[in-house]
Amino acid sequence: MQFAGSHILSIAQFERTDVERVFAVADRMGPYAQRKRLTKVLDGAILGNMFFEPSTRTRVSFGSAFNLLGGEVRETTGFESTAIAKGESLYDTARVLSGYSDVIVMRHPAEGSVGEFAAASRVPVLNGGDGSNEHPSQALLDLYTIKSEVAAHGGHLDKLRIAMVGDLRYGRTVHSLCKLLSLFDAVEVHLVSPLELRMPEDIVEQMRTAGLSVWESDRLEESIAQVDIVYSTRIQEERFSSQEEADLYRGRFRLNQSVYTAHCQPNTVIMHPLPRDSRDHARELDDDLNDNPNLAIFRQTDNGILVRMALFALVLDVADQVDSHSREVNWYTAGRF
Amino acid sequence: MQFAGSHILSIAQFERTDVERVFAVADRMGPYAQRKRLTKVLDGAILGNMFFEPSTRTRVSFGSAFNLLGGEVRETTGFESTAIAKGESLYDTARVLSGYSDVIVMRHPAEGSVGEFAAASRVPVLNGGDGSNEHPSQALLDLYTIKSEVAAHGGHLDKLRIAMVGDLRYGRTVHSLCKLLSLFDAVEVHLVSPLELRMPEDIVEQMRTAGLSVWESDRLEESIAQVDIVYSTRIQEERFSSQEEADLYRGRFRLNQSVYTAHCQPNTVIMHPLPRDSRDHARELDDDLNDNPNLAIFRQTDNGILVRMALFALVLDVADQVDSHSREVNWYTAGRF
Amino acid sequence: MQFAGSHILSIAQFERTDVERVFAVADRMGPYAQRKRLTKVLDGAILGNMFFEPSTRTRVSFGSAFNLLGGEVRETTGFESTAIAKGESLYDTARVLSGYSDVIVMRHPAEGSVGEFAAASRVPVLNGGDGSNEHPSQALLDLYTIKSEVAAHGGHLDKLRIAMVGDLRYGRTVHSLCKLLSLFDAVEVHLVSPLELRMPEDIVEQMRTAGLSVWESDRLEESIAQVDIVYSTRIQEERFSSQEEADLYRGRFRLNQSVYTAHCQPNTVIMHPLPRDSRDHARELDDDLNDNPNLAIFRQTDNGILVRMALFALVLDVADQVDSHSREVNWYTAGRF
Repeated sequence: MQFAGSHILSIAQFERTDVERVFAVADRMGPYAQRKRLTKVLDGAILGNMFFEPSTRTRVSFGSAFNLLGGEVRETTGFESTAIAKGESLYDTARVLSGYSDVIVMRHPAEGSVGEFAAASRVPVLNGGDGSNEHPSQALLDLYTIKSEVAAHGGHLDKLRIAMVGDLRYGRTVHSLCKLLSLFDAVEVHLVSPLELRMPEDIVEQMRTAGLSVWESDRLEESIAQVDIVYSTRIQEERFSSQEEADLYRGRFRLNQSVYTAHCQPNTVIMHPLPRDSRDHARELDDDLNDNPNLAIFRQTDNGILVRMALFALVLDVADQVDSHSREVNWYTAGRF
Repeated sequence: MQFAGSHILSIAQFERTDVERVFAVADRMGPYAQRKRLTKVLDGAILGNMFFEPSTRTRVSFGSAFNLLGGEVRETTGFESTAIAKGESLYDTARVLSGYSDVIVMRHPAEGSVGEFAAASRVPVLNGGDGSNEHPSQALLDLYTIKSEVAAHGGHLDKLRIAMVGDLRYGRTVHSLCKLLSLFDAVEVHLVSPLELRMPEDIVEQMRTAGLSVWESDRLEESIAQVDIVYSTRIQEERFSSQEEADLYRGRFRLNQSVYTAHCQPNTVIMHPLPRDSRDHARELDDDLNDNPNLAIFRQTDNGILVRMALFALVLDVADQVDSHSREVNWYTAGRF
Repeated sequence: MQFAGSHILSIAQFERTDVERVFAVADRMGPYAQRKRLTKVLDGAILGNMFFEPSTRTRVSFGSAFNLLGGEVRETTGFESTAIAKGESLYDTARVLSGYSDVIVMRHPAEGSVGEFAAASRVPVLNGGDGSNEHPSQALLDLYTIKSEVAAHGGHLDKLRIAMVGDLRYGRTVHSLCKLLSLFDAVEVHLVSPLELRMPEDIVEQMRTAGLSVWESDRLEESIAQVDIVYSTRIQEERFSSQEEADLYRGRFRLNQSVYTAHCQPNTVIMHPLPRDSRDHARELDDDLNDNPNLAIFRQTDNGILVRMALFALVLDVADQVDSHSREVNWYTAGRF
């Protein structure tokens, strides 16, 4: 992929070398995100952070990533007040808004809308989530986290063993992750879900065609026994016919420290796209895992900053200039990370 | 007008030389808006972008214009959460908020409120729209666009021929534009509207007194035959007694490529304050005009950035320092404009 | 107190020397807030301005203070769209959001929530108000204003004489101020309120234990006769059993120019946490005081900028570098303050 000037709309755009390019740039963003150094490579650039659907943390993560490169952020949140609501076409909206910034992140509740917007935009557009369709930066940060976590124990994305647990039917996150994993070799995927919430058949087929080993099961314990990563997701009660049925599954897929100790290998890493539900009856990852050093859920969200910085740096073609515009941080950062 | 430190509340403040001064500064903003160069002339300055009524594009346009000069933006959107709602006077609100920034843009639903706010403010206030009253930056960007478009064919604001089409009774935009055009010589104005939506008498009188030639008509085709500019506006169905009546007028004032080809001169420029309605039954400018090089509606909104940059530069008295604080852009901008 | 890296959650953290340290730093912020000079000491730093409850002026004041030190601001306003609403714990929210910025200001409707958030945050958190609990920057700016105002007439916080007027029972502001005043010597406090809205007993006791002289009364005129400061607060009608009862008290505690002239000493300073009610039936400070040079309510809100700049500078440990990162302002500022 030619990143400079491109829209980032779907993980389908990414070949293995593209993913590796993003990750290589993300690796170099660490000192800036961790405040060991400061870069002003995008000083004077403007991000249009256009959230036509609210998503506080995705919005703030993109905005902070742009600030960390030295750029400015203009934002909008919500839908009702926009011209779209008055009958304006996405074409017109895109033509107008793309005159106000150097790059746009757009989130929109309607599937496909971000692509339509991008087609009329005069500046690169990054998809910040369009309904149930795509959220490519989330998929990339998940995979980047997997890569970083297993690397700490000498592992690689090739030969990765991963269990995905929970609602695999409706979860946009796990769908995208499966597609990205298909770019790598000898990956072993354990899909753990209630029967009603199985991974869609076409995605399973795509993985098998790509050479991955895929197992499906509704048994948590055996599925997490031989994996590098457990990727947990929320059981969404609204999908079930009754509370009782939902609660049945919930009990079985709940991971806590004693389940972990009893069934997982010592270095198995725990991930989750967040938010996780902290209400007693609805937990999928218990708080008693918070001190487990293999709980990677907050490293995962921190990695979102690195991956989003990398995407901005690539589409604006400054990835190789980041360090040359850098300097030391002059404020207190001790104990920060 | 002495711009430095002044409020910009109404186009009635502007004499011809003032308009020309704004346009001369706006002309010099092109390289910055188009990202050929970068200026930091307002580095460290703060804009209070105070929108007590939502207007996404006006808000983002002002904010981006300020960022393009190197300044920072603090914003507020919406009304319900403010102290005004708790019984605070505009005087107090203005005194408080004007301590937080170097210049304020204020939009407010109540006519005259921005002027009242400005009277108590300790920093310059730009009117971003106060109800049906004034929206001076919109009027200036419209006129600036006319000037730029006709200049491409050797035309001038003096001797301009313009048709204004649609709802001329309630449209704040066309009222302001008429007043600004009265500052120029030998202007010919064709007003095309349904009888019920004619331009208010006093504005027609004001133009005639100022020496303009004014024609009124409800026939689109003959009125757009001999003009430099067609300025189209929305027919607002809520003003009519019935849907059927609204639809009657709509059909007559709808401009599309075949009407344009049949009736307009080759270089006639099409403008619109946007948003235009893209719903089938409500269109005033068809999508088939999108490839017509004389469709200036997106150049018009782009010009909003130039004019707003010029207004900020003038009231903060940095218009002559913009270039000396400038440098090259270091990110990818190819194919942007 | 060790400021660098600390959370600022409660005025209970502050000893007298800490208050004096904040004030000494705030004193040095004047030239920057008044735009005589510009500092970029926090250039590249990011504030997470997290308002889970709306408060326009507190939010903008914190944001502008951070901008005035050269930093960037990422914001969120409102609650409904956040992950907290989906059952996420404050612990998770704090861990995630604290990866996006260098310091966080948090406002939240629930008492104690900001402290809980801070406990999990990886960066310093400033309490921007947590329900009826604490709003420490407001208390500090009030005390800083008192110090500055009485200093103009040779006075000090030691030996201060102050009257607090209005709703002393529910007002978070006056409670905090009383606690801070307890750090100083020989302070004389006159509490003026309806019987039903008296200062809570424990706060009165705390002041007396600390050696302050405390008088309680429901007579405005005699209580404001011999004081340096009159600190007025809103009578909140919703606390009363009937409109009529509220109106009874209102009439008695209303301060206007003629009451001031008849009863106050010439240099008595008038303060109010704002907003003050401008509706005829509900006023506590009349508009005819606006020209009284001792009306300090707008100097008070301006001081909020200085105190918040000082808090940021202290927790990020740049208080001693502010001047060395400074330069002259290049835009028009004449007549600003």
